[in-house]
Amino acid sequence: MDIAKVKSTLHMEDMGQAMYEMIARLFPICRSITGNGVRESLAIVREHVPLELHEIPSGTRIYDWSVPQEWNIRDAFVRDPSGIKVIDFQRSNLHVMSYSVPVRARMPLEALRPHLYSDPDHPNWVPNRRSYYKKDWGFCLSYADMQKLIPGDYEVCIDSSLEDGSLTYGECFLPGDVTDEVLISTHVCHPSLCNDNLSGIVVSAFLAQLLAAIPLHFSYRFLFIPQGIGSISWLASNEEVASRIRHGLVLSCLGDDGDFTYKTSRRGDADIDRACSHVLHESAKPARVLKFSPHGGDERQFCSPGFDLPIGVLMRSSYGNFPQYHTSADDLNFVQPKALSESFNVLIDIIAILENNRNYRNTCPRCEPYLAKRGISLSGDWPFGPSKEQPVLWLLNMADGSHSLLDIAVRSGLDFDSLCQAARMLRKYGLLTE
Amino acid sequence: MDIAKVKSTLHMEDMGQAMYEMIARLFPICRSITGNGVRESLAIVREHVPLELHEIPSGTRIYDWSVPQEWNIRDAFVRDPSGIKVIDFQRSNLHVMSYSVPVRARMPLEALRPHLYSDPDHPNWVPNRRSYYKKDWGFCLSYADMQKLIPGDYEVCIDSSLEDGSLTYGECFLPGDVTDEVLISTHVCHPSLCNDNLSGIVVSAFLAQLLAAIPLHFSYRFLFIPQGIGSISWLASNEEVASRIRHGLVLSCLGDDGDFTYKTSRRGDADIDRACSHVLHESAKPARVLKFSPHGGDERQFCSPGFDLPIGVLMRSSYGNFPQYHTSADDLNFVQPKALSESFNVLIDIIAILENNRNYRNTCPRCEPYLAKRGISLSGDWPFGPSKEQPVLWLLNMADGSHSLLDIAVRSGLDFDSLCQAARMLRKYGLLTE
Amino acid sequence: MDIAKVKSTLHMEDMGQAMYEMIARLFPICRSITGNGVRESLAIVREHVPLELHEIPSGTRIYDWSVPQEWNIRDAFVRDPSGIKVIDFQRSNLHVMSYSVPVRARMPLEALRPHLYSDPDHPNWVPNRRSYYKKDWGFCLSYADMQKLIPGDYEVCIDSSLEDGSLTYGECFLPGDVTDEVLISTHVCHPSLCNDNLSGIVVSAFLAQLLAAIPLHFSYRFLFIPQGIGSISWLASNEEVASRIRHGLVLSCLGDDGDFTYKTSRRGDADIDRACSHVLHESAKPARVLKFSPHGGDERQFCSPGFDLPIGVLMRSSYGNFPQYHTSADDLNFVQPKALSESFNVLIDIIAILENNRNYRNTCPRCEPYLAKRGISLSGDWPFGPSKEQPVLWLLNMADGSHSLLDIAVRSGLDFDSLCQAARMLRKYGLLTE
Repeated sequence: MDIAKVKSTLHMEDMGQAMYEMIARLFPICRSITGNGVRESLAIVREHVPLELHEIPSGTRIYDWSVPQEWNIRDAFVRDPSGIKVIDFQRSNLHVMSYSVPVRARMPLEALRPHLYSDPDHPNWVPNRRSYYKKDWGFCLSYADMQKLIPGDYEVCIDSSLEDGSLTYGECFLPGDVTDEVLISTHVCHPSLCNDNLSGIVVSAFLAQLLAAIPLHFSYRFLFIPQGIGSISWLASNEEVASRIRHGLVLSCLGDDGDFTYKTSRRGDADIDRACSHVLHESAKPARVLKFSPHGGDERQFCSPGFDLPIGVLMRSSYGNFPQYHTSADDLNFVQPKALSESFNVLIDIIAILENNRNYRNTCPRCEPYLAKRGISLSGDWPFGPSKEQPVLWLLNMADGSHSLLDIAVRSGLDFDSLCQAARMLRKYGLLTE
Repeated sequence: MDIAKVKSTLHMEDMGQAMYEMIARLFPICRSITGNGVRESLAIVREHVPLELHEIPSGTRIYDWSVPQEWNIRDAFVRDPSGIKVIDFQRSNLHVMSYSVPVRARMPLEALRPHLYSDPDHPNWVPNRRSYYKKDWGFCLSYADMQKLIPGDYEVCIDSSLEDGSLTYGECFLPGDVTDEVLISTHVCHPSLCNDNLSGIVVSAFLAQLLAAIPLHFSYRFLFIPQGIGSISWLASNEEVASRIRHGLVLSCLGDDGDFTYKTSRRGDADIDRACSHVLHESAKPARVLKFSPHGGDERQFCSPGFDLPIGVLMRSSYGNFPQYHTSADDLNFVQPKALSESFNVLIDIIAILENNRNYRNTCPRCEPYLAKRGISLSGDWPFGPSKEQPVLWLLNMADGSHSLLDIAVRSGLDFDSLCQAARMLRKYGLLTE
Repeated sequence: MDIAKVKSTLHMEDMGQAMYEMIARLFPICRSITGNGVRESLAIVREHVPLELHEIPSGTRIYDWSVPQEWNIRDAFVRDPSGIKVIDFQRSNLHVMSYSVPVRARMPLEALRPHLYSDPDHPNWVPNRRSYYKKDWGFCLSYADMQKLIPGDYEVCIDSSLEDGSLTYGECFLPGDVTDEVLISTHVCHPSLCNDNLSGIVVSAFLAQLLAAIPLHFSYRFLFIPQGIGSISWLASNEEVASRIRHGLVLSCLGDDGDFTYKTSRRGDADIDRACSHVLHESAKPARVLKFSPHGGDERQFCSPGFDLPIGVLMRSSYGNFPQYHTSADDLNFVQPKALSESFNVLIDIIAILENNRNYRNTCPRCEPYLAKRGISLSGDWPFGPSKEQPVLWLLNMADGSHSLLDIAVRSGLDFDSLCQAARMLRKYGLLTE
């Protein structure tokens, strides 16, 4: 069954709810770019999709980088002079700066302060901080709580470990009719932040689950990786696979109710760029298409000049451009089942284009074929306006072997699926060949 | 004498009047895609231009199609229960659906109704209907008249014939200096409808008459054909001729006072597309340039992918986009002599570009030539602004063999004729060669 | 020392003042396309730059032209019937039409009138006139003064000479690392007119002086030539040099306070065109970029089809488009030190792009390099917004050998200098090679 048809069988409301519930399970886990939080999260993803787990040992050379030590944390807190826990990792893992080295000390407030991070612009939110490549420790707290700290000696504890171990990522490969691949990549390294990027994880997982159940034209590869170092690790050991990637998407921030944003690949005019623009444009809702820039997430690695892969980024509100980004306000209230299911929907429409895009050739290219004698009815009078025969006429006219279905969709402004259906019908009558 | 010069000798007002009178003569004839109505109409066209008549026998295979049977009609009417002719072909041939099979019957109003067509949106207009490829019969009447029909038994008569015969079209070939051709095609299959397309017929006929009298660079071929099946018939037996077509236009709807519309060829950037855009743009009146789409008239066949000819469509209000289209309101009041002569004017400007477009080469390409010593006066002081020396300077600068006059007109924004005149002058002085 | 660094050492206010003072010295001299006025002016330019003077004898064939006779003038006046000098060359050299043949005569006002030029639209301004290629004489005066002339006999004297001699131009060549050249051309043939073109002369002279003092990548050639016949003369004897020109600018009208105008080369997309557009765009002030047209100054010769050199024109208000143009109002009040220094500034920014534009290649093209381990600090958190690491990331991403720094500046919207600095830093670390 074709993906466009499968879509019509899905109960989107239920799927949105199921994705939301998966986010709720993943939310409390303390993830970072390495460590058990990633493993726990991938175990949950694995309930949905056949996930191969990879462990890359600390110190492994990956291009210009090496895999960092593994970080784990059991507990962390700060007690004020009166013994009250004023900061407590057990309440939210955002309170500890990711990759904090272990600390167990008493110190006056003045000595503690340089290790405390808050955001006066959003006084009730806890910001999220990390220090992956410089050994440091720190606590994050709301500005309101920061203001309440009283002078005196504080007990500081970070019960973490930073030791040789491994970097963990998950990979799910779904073979298709051809060995050419579509890559879907999402980052799994953020702690209790819902939109960035539990939303990307669950949408990816549900998509993989769906595709695993149907025949596929392309082979699909899903990556659940720590941002940056994860894509570098994967590329370093998969150069040959990378050369087979025909299309790809980085998924992130897909659970809020903002307008869709697509950031193009470095190439800017790859099929994935045109497919995403077409779907977002067809949706008739406001949407942004941003040109590639070398900032952001794993697209920085996939689109580095030595790879220059045709991979874009699909988001709702774009990373860095919503106030809740990387704060405690990116929580279970900020993402919604409806937004997740809409994102899933758009993603399926994009995949349906990739799967079904073909170059056809009209077998009867001199003048129009006599459709009526084959029982193909073009409704009514002369066809001038937009109507159901449009896809048939556009296809017959443009199918000269040099225009793909996507080219025809973009040129005609017709939606891809109607062209696909028309193509199927015309092939049945022998009027189109591939 | 060059066409641009001929134009200045024409009395446009008289020509508009003469074209209008020719429409008035053609108006009452009942045309369809085959039959005597076409022959009668072509006989009138033949008074103006040397027209070769072609008769293609019914059943002839033309690509995926075959030539239909020939349809002729003598009379048709409907009498109401009281014996009154409530619908009468003699009053207007629009009352009968084109290609109606013969009928002679009595039937109650309920049985008649499915064969009656009217348009409640324009209650006083008679719509125009045809059923070429499905055997059927029908009457068209105004919605107002439809409402007046009383219950009871009706006498129905369509005295038509649908038999083996032939499809008729007219062709006028005007040889030029080169065997490369310009094709002008217009459809002759519509009954008493003025703008669509008696206007196209008369403008074509007058243009052919004009071109027949002057020396031509290109060879010109005028087709007076039934829409769809006519262009298919012609293409099927003229593939080699088609390969010589360098430019072409389908003419229709040229008699109303709407703004000009040009619909590009499938290629979109053919010389004919740029010439028409340039002329319409230069006219400084509102005009539309529409991109090709595979709907409409004979351009559907000429621009089918196996031919992809550089042929566009010139119209005033575009087919399907004026309320009178295919109704009794497209009558002798809807078209006007002035609109016809304006259309003729624009068409001559377009032909003048096709005829005179050349690639020249400046024989003195290093620095500007010393024009004054040849007596070529560039007025006044340094030439900065728009003035008469502009065409000379643009030509000398751009004439490097890779820019045609049309290219230079488009780039400079100068009108084509002034560039033509300047080119003629500069050739006289040996400063340009072809 | 690099030009961008030199710029920061300049005291722009002083330079503007110095340029203005040089204009004031040049102002009284009566220049034309030949004669001692040009020589006197070049002598002043020579105080700043090592200028080679060329004298091309009258009658020398230069392509389609020949060098005209040399014109010199000592005095000229008109005395009215009462003996009063109503027009006096000693008050302003604009009063005599340039290239006026000698005259000594008495004539009634009616006979004199055809030789008098004034402008009723600006009744207090004296227009500027020339008659280089047609032997004639004339006087220019304000319309107000013209109105005061009384009937009667006038004494007319033009003490000029038009004899075989030579055409004079100045050339300053500054050798660089490569023999490829940048051409800077400015016209020196206008009499007491400040903006057109003493401004171009002084900005050129100061630029040559600056460039003479620093190491250069390209070789630079400055031309101080009479307009039209001067560029034709130079091209005729420098075809081989012309073939080495990679970039060039014609400088004129750089002293008024109008917005900047850049007129592109005939090619329209040459590096000089993109460099100038980028600098004017980056300045964040209103600026115009005009497409090439074959009117104007020496670009008409440099961009003639046989040369088609990548040479544009840099101006403030564009020639012909300010009311003071070619009138006595283009005087020492119309140009300002501040405007001259701004123009000089912009010009240096343009030269800095030409000098430093290179194609680099990222030596570490697969994934991003690990910058932090080299001590290259990218500030703070993930880099999403505009900030100092942007040039580094854009460079690493785009430096694939097919994008120049200018390409990257245009694509990223970053200013060229920040990219240059980043490139220098990355080369130091071995991350970029040329």
